[in-house]
Amino acid sequence: MNETAISKLEIISSAELLKHWQGHRKLTRQLIERFPENELFSYSIGGMRTFALLAHELIGLSGPGIKGIVTGDWTASPEMDHFGGNLTNETKADLLRIWDEVTALLDAYWPQISAERFHDQVVAFGQYENSVISTILYFIDNEIHHRGQGYVYLRSLGIEPPAFWDRPF
Amino acid sequence: MNETAISKLEIISSAELLKHWQGHRKLTRQLIERFPENELFSYSIGGMRTFALLAHELIGLSGPGIKGIVTGDWTASPEMDHFGGNLTNETKADLLRIWDEVTALLDAYWPQISAERFHDQVVAFGQYENSVISTILYFIDNEIHHRGQGYVYLRSLGIEPPAFWDRPF
Repeated sequence: MNETAISKLEIISSAELLKHWQGHRKLTRQLIERFPENELFSYSIGGMRTFALLAHELIGLSGPGIKGIVTGDWTASPEMDHFGGNLTNETKADLLRIWDEVTALLDAYWPQISAERFHDQVVAFGQYENSVISTILYFIDNEIHHRGQGYVYLRSLGIEPPAFWDRPF
Repeated sequence: MNETAISKLEIISSAELLKHWQGHRKLTRQLIERFPENELFSYSIGGMRTFALLAHELIGLSGPGIKGIVTGDWTASPEMDHFGGNLTNETKADLLRIWDEVTALLDAYWPQISAERFHDQVVAFGQYENSVISTILYFIDNEIHHRGQGYVYLRSLGIEPPAFWDRPF
């Protein structure tokens, strides 16, 4: 690859990336909705985590992640600590409610990230050093990755998942 | 969301996005390598496609896709038509070789996309109208999605997949 031939101009705006991410999150929410209540918390393949546990990871990265990027505070915040304790009584409705709280959190924090800030280095969760943009792309990619796994869970349960391509942006 | 509060500056460069995509493609290549020869072409879950067939889709989108974006020629090119015919004798080595051809094709075509071009509209494969950047993000997201499914296939075969996070960028 000829590095010098590649334009140094930038090609995605902040608003576009938020729309892209929220579009993916909307699709993941639809996947959660399609799971039967019981299988959401009990079904898995090959010793992997249930889709509820995978969703907990996505929530735990996105919510505290955007807060950490904006505020520099990477300690677990009380409002995001929904899943630190006893999961015994958790329902699909609980999971969707918390999912929606993260959606609102993302919309609220995102405009506070200046364009220049995307190339600053951060140490996400006090452990993972990378640029802000790479950290955010990791959150999005990780969601697509685990959601793809949820598609297999649903298919193996004989349930049609939502269309992958049916997203904004 | 307050649209006016969001910076209109752009946040990812063309070179960064190519590196990001090729990093994902390298990981998918590692996943192909981990599959046993037979299961790559025969194993699936829930009536889904084998991982070889999913990889064919990824190859068929990425190679002709980048060529179409750059040249405007969306007809199947002879060199990318590897999978149009008889698959009977295809091996893992064949699949990896063609994967690598697409890697080289991406590196060759990518510098010909100007930064301004990323926001032009295209009708990919004569069917899917969207901006160049959205079309490329779709190719990448679709690869992460299907690769995540391949992770489940490997896990259910008792095989450890490569680490998802072990990518450049």
